[in-house]
Amino acid sequence: MEKTSDKSPEKITDKISAPTVMRLSEYYRVLTELDAERQLTVSSSRLAEVGGITPSQVRKDLSYFGNFGRRGLGYNVTELRRALREILGLNRRWNVALVGAGNLGHALHSYQEFRQQGFYVRAIFDVDPSKVGEKWGDIVVSHLDDLAGIVAKEKIEIAILVTPADVAQEVADRIVETGIEGILNFAPRKLEVPDSVMLRNVNLSIALESLTFSLTS
Amino acid sequence: MEKTSDKSPEKITDKISAPTVMRLSEYYRVLTELDAERQLTVSSSRLAEVGGITPSQVRKDLSYFGNFGRRGLGYNVTELRRALREILGLNRRWNVALVGAGNLGHALHSYQEFRQQGFYVRAIFDVDPSKVGEKWGDIVVSHLDDLAGIVAKEKIEIAILVTPADVAQEVADRIVETGIEGILNFAPRKLEVPDSVMLRNVNLSIALESLTFSLTS
Repeated sequence: MEKTSDKSPEKITDKISAPTVMRLSEYYRVLTELDAERQLTVSSSRLAEVGGITPSQVRKDLSYFGNFGRRGLGYNVTELRRALREILGLNRRWNVALVGAGNLGHALHSYQEFRQQGFYVRAIFDVDPSKVGEKWGDIVVSHLDDLAGIVAKEKIEIAILVTPADVAQEVADRIVETGIEGILNFAPRKLEVPDSVMLRNVNLSIALESLTFSLTS
Repeated sequence: MEKTSDKSPEKITDKISAPTVMRLSEYYRVLTELDAERQLTVSSSRLAEVGGITPSQVRKDLSYFGNFGRRGLGYNVTELRRALREILGLNRRWNVALVGAGNLGHALHSYQEFRQQGFYVRAIFDVDPSKVGEKWGDIVVSHLDDLAGIVAKEKIEIAILVTPADVAQEVADRIVETGIEGILNFAPRKLEVPDSVMLRNVNLSIALESLTFSLTS
């Protein structure tokens, strides 16, 4: 890997909370729509609706990254969209590996928005002999034993972990060994990774719980 | 449907933001682990770590629902876990339908944590003649035309929408007509539903963006 791990504690990205980043992603989506509709400006109140927060929280979220708005005029849609695109790392391609070739792996492989945002699945891994060798689009499922070689060859930067929970930690360890710095974990298991590796967990139950919370009087 | 729509604006659940509810779900998971380890108490600092927030925000999150902590002693693990379980609506079963029998539908059907949290998939729908009639475990995939009848018969309360984006709104309209009050939408499309229906959107790219945000210096 060319990249060295220089995560100094002063990095702006370390100071921003995960919910803030999720809101930036939501703002980015609204701005993309507004841009397509040729809207020139957007108010912080409009962006606040999107995030279910106050306009002042919107201004705070965006103030981390610069001075985007003008009092009384709102934000310039194209400018703010372009800035968020860069902040979120969406102004480039990311090479992604799917680790786990089950149903969820299949679903993510065909999830069209990934490619729209610049996420390219370049390799798929499994240990099941009946899956290794399968062709998914233009990618052949590889054996997990070939992880390190393929990660280097395909310049994989992010691994999406979609294995069964009971092997997730072991597989995460192997991913970390390759030098990959970002793991998106769908396995319902808490994983331990070194501080130099960014780990995000997706728990599909939690989205359902925000529904049942609201449906429970 | 027996339930009437009585969403008065004074409901506590209307005042709580989506990120707060997500944190409640995270606290609940940690408390479940601590309870299994027979820990008796937990500090707000420990819970704050989980949510990536300050201890005072934890206390604020929990204060909406009652007075759980004791100064200097922290929270009683079993008590707080039981309270959150109730608040999140996890102390009961929920009957769920999967609308869309593709790969993501498959993955969600076999997602074990759903059942652990009380979410029971009781029906699966599609319009593809090659899928209708398929047996998934003990459920036969039904045609979408049979939605209303099966929703009533199986007392479905929540629909998980996993159709292609271009038909998502049309399918959502049909779901709403059945009287279902909660929709979890995985289709990458903004949906319009009446105020009486709770809609939550899951965007799988957004989780990746919180990684690329952090990997982007």
